[in-house]
Amino acid sequence: MSANTGSEGSYGNDSVTARVRGLLEATFETEDFDFWMCASGTASNALALSVMCSPTGAILCHEEAHIERDERGAPEFFTGGAKLQLLTGTGAKIEEAALRNALGRIDRSFVHETPAETLSLTNLTECGMAYDASEIRHYAALAHEAALSVHLDGARIANALASTNSSPADMTWRAGVDVLTFGLTKTGAIGCEIILLFGDMRAKFDELKALAKRSGHMPPKMRFIAAQAEAMLESNLWLELAEQANTTATQLANILCAHEGVSLAYPVQGNEVFVHLPDAIAKKLLDAGSKFYPWPGGSHRLVCSWVTGQDELDVVRSVLNAST
Amino acid sequence: MSANTGSEGSYGNDSVTARVRGLLEATFETEDFDFWMCASGTASNALALSVMCSPTGAILCHEEAHIERDERGAPEFFTGGAKLQLLTGTGAKIEEAALRNALGRIDRSFVHETPAETLSLTNLTECGMAYDASEIRHYAALAHEAALSVHLDGARIANALASTNSSPADMTWRAGVDVLTFGLTKTGAIGCEIILLFGDMRAKFDELKALAKRSGHMPPKMRFIAAQAEAMLESNLWLELAEQANTTATQLANILCAHEGVSLAYPVQGNEVFVHLPDAIAKKLLDAGSKFYPWPGGSHRLVCSWVTGQDELDVVRSVLNAST
Amino acid sequence: MSANTGSEGSYGNDSVTARVRGLLEATFETEDFDFWMCASGTASNALALSVMCSPTGAILCHEEAHIERDERGAPEFFTGGAKLQLLTGTGAKIEEAALRNALGRIDRSFVHETPAETLSLTNLTECGMAYDASEIRHYAALAHEAALSVHLDGARIANALASTNSSPADMTWRAGVDVLTFGLTKTGAIGCEIILLFGDMRAKFDELKALAKRSGHMPPKMRFIAAQAEAMLESNLWLELAEQANTTATQLANILCAHEGVSLAYPVQGNEVFVHLPDAIAKKLLDAGSKFYPWPGGSHRLVCSWVTGQDELDVVRSVLNAST
Amino acid sequence: MSANTGSEGSYGNDSVTARVRGLLEATFETEDFDFWMCASGTASNALALSVMCSPTGAILCHEEAHIERDERGAPEFFTGGAKLQLLTGTGAKIEEAALRNALGRIDRSFVHETPAETLSLTNLTECGMAYDASEIRHYAALAHEAALSVHLDGARIANALASTNSSPADMTWRAGVDVLTFGLTKTGAIGCEIILLFGDMRAKFDELKALAKRSGHMPPKMRFIAAQAEAMLESNLWLELAEQANTTATQLANILCAHEGVSLAYPVQGNEVFVHLPDAIAKKLLDAGSKFYPWPGGSHRLVCSWVTGQDELDVVRSVLNAST
Repeated sequence: MSANTGSEGSYGNDSVTARVRGLLEATFETEDFDFWMCASGTASNALALSVMCSPTGAILCHEEAHIERDERGAPEFFTGGAKLQLLTGTGAKIEEAALRNALGRIDRSFVHETPAETLSLTNLTECGMAYDASEIRHYAALAHEAALSVHLDGARIANALASTNSSPADMTWRAGVDVLTFGLTKTGAIGCEIILLFGDMRAKFDELKALAKRSGHMPPKMRFIAAQAEAMLESNLWLELAEQANTTATQLANILCAHEGVSLAYPVQGNEVFVHLPDAIAKKLLDAGSKFYPWPGGSHRLVCSWVTGQDELDVVRSVLNAST
Repeated sequence: MSANTGSEGSYGNDSVTARVRGLLEATFETEDFDFWMCASGTASNALALSVMCSPTGAILCHEEAHIERDERGAPEFFTGGAKLQLLTGTGAKIEEAALRNALGRIDRSFVHETPAETLSLTNLTECGMAYDASEIRHYAALAHEAALSVHLDGARIANALASTNSSPADMTWRAGVDVLTFGLTKTGAIGCEIILLFGDMRAKFDELKALAKRSGHMPPKMRFIAAQAEAMLESNLWLELAEQANTTATQLANILCAHEGVSLAYPVQGNEVFVHLPDAIAKKLLDAGSKFYPWPGGSHRLVCSWVTGQDELDVVRSVLNAST
Repeated sequence: MSANTGSEGSYGNDSVTARVRGLLEATFETEDFDFWMCASGTASNALALSVMCSPTGAILCHEEAHIERDERGAPEFFTGGAKLQLLTGTGAKIEEAALRNALGRIDRSFVHETPAETLSLTNLTECGMAYDASEIRHYAALAHEAALSVHLDGARIANALASTNSSPADMTWRAGVDVLTFGLTKTGAIGCEIILLFGDMRAKFDELKALAKRSGHMPPKMRFIAAQAEAMLESNLWLELAEQANTTATQLANILCAHEGVSLAYPVQGNEVFVHLPDAIAKKLLDAGSKFYPWPGGSHRLVCSWVTGQDELDVVRSVLNAST
Repeated sequence: MSANTGSEGSYGNDSVTARVRGLLEATFETEDFDFWMCASGTASNALALSVMCSPTGAILCHEEAHIERDERGAPEFFTGGAKLQLLTGTGAKIEEAALRNALGRIDRSFVHETPAETLSLTNLTECGMAYDASEIRHYAALAHEAALSVHLDGARIANALASTNSSPADMTWRAGVDVLTFGLTKTGAIGCEIILLFGDMRAKFDELKALAKRSGHMPPKMRFIAAQAEAMLESNLWLELAEQANTTATQLANILCAHEGVSLAYPVQGNEVFVHLPDAIAKKLLDAGSKFYPWPGGSHRLVCSWVTGQDELDVVRSVLNAST
């Protein structure tokens, strides 16, 4: 509401956006970055990748990554035709051997094959698992050695930070991340993702803005996105809300796993619970109004948000107890 | 605020979006349309054009059209490389001879040249002039005869409707417009543009959604865009605000033109005033805090919005009187 | 040489191209097709796919397919960003379970995921194996059931036809192939690939020509490509040369496998031999002037062309015998 | 024919291509270039431009330039969506005022408008007129001052060189041309255009090759394109043939203009004649078997090639005399 008073500069030249810069400096413990705000997670990933990878290059990512599975070809569209090269690993975490193998195959002198130019990691992964800062650092080092840049899709980075007890700086630029898609939407914002270009990648900032403009991601009234970022960042609300969602998810997992036949598909390392549920139990929960989806591989995915309350856990508990 | 309560479906499957459909039916006096909402004017134009024109076709538009001048190549990007073919005319209104000439040149059997597939009109034009409904109808008929589809960039359609005393239906589908970009942002919304596909163009709705998804214009929390549309449409607020802005603009024009050396560059047919201002007068206004820009051709562009008040006109009046 | 006399129409409107049409009718036993000639295999595949798959769709192909591995993102470029979805199978032949699984996953109503629109088969495969006509027919039927169109990359179709004793018609349109990339370059032409659109796909012919023009694959002096096709087709030279290369390859394989430690990686079903070679033997051959490459998975790839003679086989034989 | 013997490296790693490098060094009096050969004029222009202009930039060219009128959107396709910004001038020569005006309008800090990044000149122009070396030098200097790179579409550069008595070096890199599309097809080759990257632009050579590969312009049997270049360059055949065609065109113009009512639309500065022809005369010529086209603006275009003989001129002469 407060952003909706008075007259302000447009396209990011407003006082709210200026304040967000200061908050990002404090959050990431550095001034060596440029940033752009975007209402869309898909677009912020695709824009980030489009300044990192050329039209004739490839992006390494997990075969279940959001950029591969759930963005309808946005990376290909924004990059002008780059390829995603898919890596394997449990719980949507890239396994080191797959990464090393892909990096080893790159031959830039062989014009017929598409060389990888960027590594994209996702934290939390699509299966709710977390890379800790040292894993990011290790993978980023391998990527840099092979002259790849490193992108972190942080749509759920708040949950990963809370779960691994890392600082934003340690998980990102200090670990070697060149470009971060910093998601606040899943933590509670209306629609607010921030692309951060760290260090040398700042040279791409003007290009990023031109590409954002061209794709309709340069809103004249940017301050309404900025206001969301400000509210989330100014007192660490984003981390608090993520921590709370994580705690609720762990409680939910415990409630579910207390029942026979229920087991976790992946460890709970954020605000998502992937469980194998007997049909009868799944039906009971759905009948009681729970909303969740089957997941490839036979499990179900349940997500706790910042507003998932103890009352909802109580309902789950009583429904499940009634079922035995 | 009211959209921010309770749990709702995502990606447009929410109750607010459902209500917007009803409001659009009432506004446009038809049920024969599909629609998509978008926070960005640039994207909504480009998405609309991308379901109308193939990658090897051309879009006819005025040489000063927003899609040509101010969207950093968005139409080329979204269409996959279509060309804009530029037409002339005073006040950014396409002149009939230019349109007829361009239509006459189309030779679909000559593979080397890019044939026009779509005509894009803008109302208000970039110079603040309005096409009335009969002009739209006439141009649309010429375009349809030559097998072109017709797009209307209605970023300021509210002002054009108020100024020409037309109904939304008469100005659009009844006049032969196939796809409308219906802008509410410039009328006062935070960021809300609606793409309407009328009649046969509804066949392109699934494609439009896929392209919206791919370009990051399918927000999970769509209801926050829908809420803006609802507020604007439910009691004709959008037209009221536009009418008010138009009235203020006319008053402003009168105030300015009362002074020697000031003359209109184009007639005021909406909420924009294009005037030739002697340097001394321009300087006085800028010194007093007015914000306006020089325009190609030597005039200046002053815009009145829904919040431009009589007090601001008073300031202009007194500044100008002080200057003589 | 004979094409280089007199004056001829340009861009395919010449007498040589007209004669090629007749030869294609005879070769494929049908008149129900349109065709375009192209000097490039990469471009002819990519052009074919670009009229089959939309920018927001996916193409199913083997993970080792030429369109995935060796065309530097050409399919993504020409389609405007479509994805390749990769399937597994031995010898670069798609296995049925992988195909059924991919087809089963398609959900066109779920806008976030990219639905497969086209199946691309390669015959010979990248590992020199052949689909026979009944396999093509079976896979094409599965694809059509799921509303996918079927592309056949026939860069080496001559070898596949010779090896499986099929007719061109049985292997292609009668088996359900909608679009064929018909390669003559690897059979001996300078640079001549023919895109054939069968049956309903003929509706895309004008679009194909526009896309060919736009990508620089509409040579003014088309007759010099057509002359190659004419020479190859008019007395079945293309099939003769392929048969000869196949025979030589089988002889080569026999020569190699007579030696201890040498074994075939894949059965020889065309003009390519993939063998596991002890290092000492590989070295001997390379030292003697043979040219061949290591292949992913540990084997080596040796290719026989229409000019590989018995004298060359004799050299291999004597080099290998000298080595024991 | 001689290129069709023995076994050679593929994709440009052959002995013929190597010899072409030497011939280009002699022709252009420099070793400071990289080059790529292409069978297509459209593709060679588009490839050249795609390493010169970003997807969010614009290319300045004449409104009648081949890249705008006759390439079906190839520049937009290859660059990933760049715009062509059109300049005026008589005879398809850009006039200096138009160029200065366009350069003056560039504001790279204003993200909404597309800034020009490249100037593309065409010599001969589409109307058969020639820029001389000093004009190229002057325009290139203006472009460089504004930080634009300079492209020369030299589909008919041989005719321009012959007509203006310039050396290839003086007309190109010494005049400030960064990238040349050097056409040999219109001088007599089957299909042979050479992209030359001079000086600093050599840094783009690897990118150019990747883009050529991706677009199907990296033929495995490159030597058959190289053989054309070799034949044309080795004894200055290309210039001889162009000179001869120019001479014939001047003779043709003289023959035509000797008749009442016939006048040149543009001066003859190459191998093309643009004349205003009374209908009766045009009809006589067409009836006698001449092939020529009406040109926008009311004139007709007649082209003399390297094989247009004195006998053909005699026919024109006698037909016209018979007509009076």
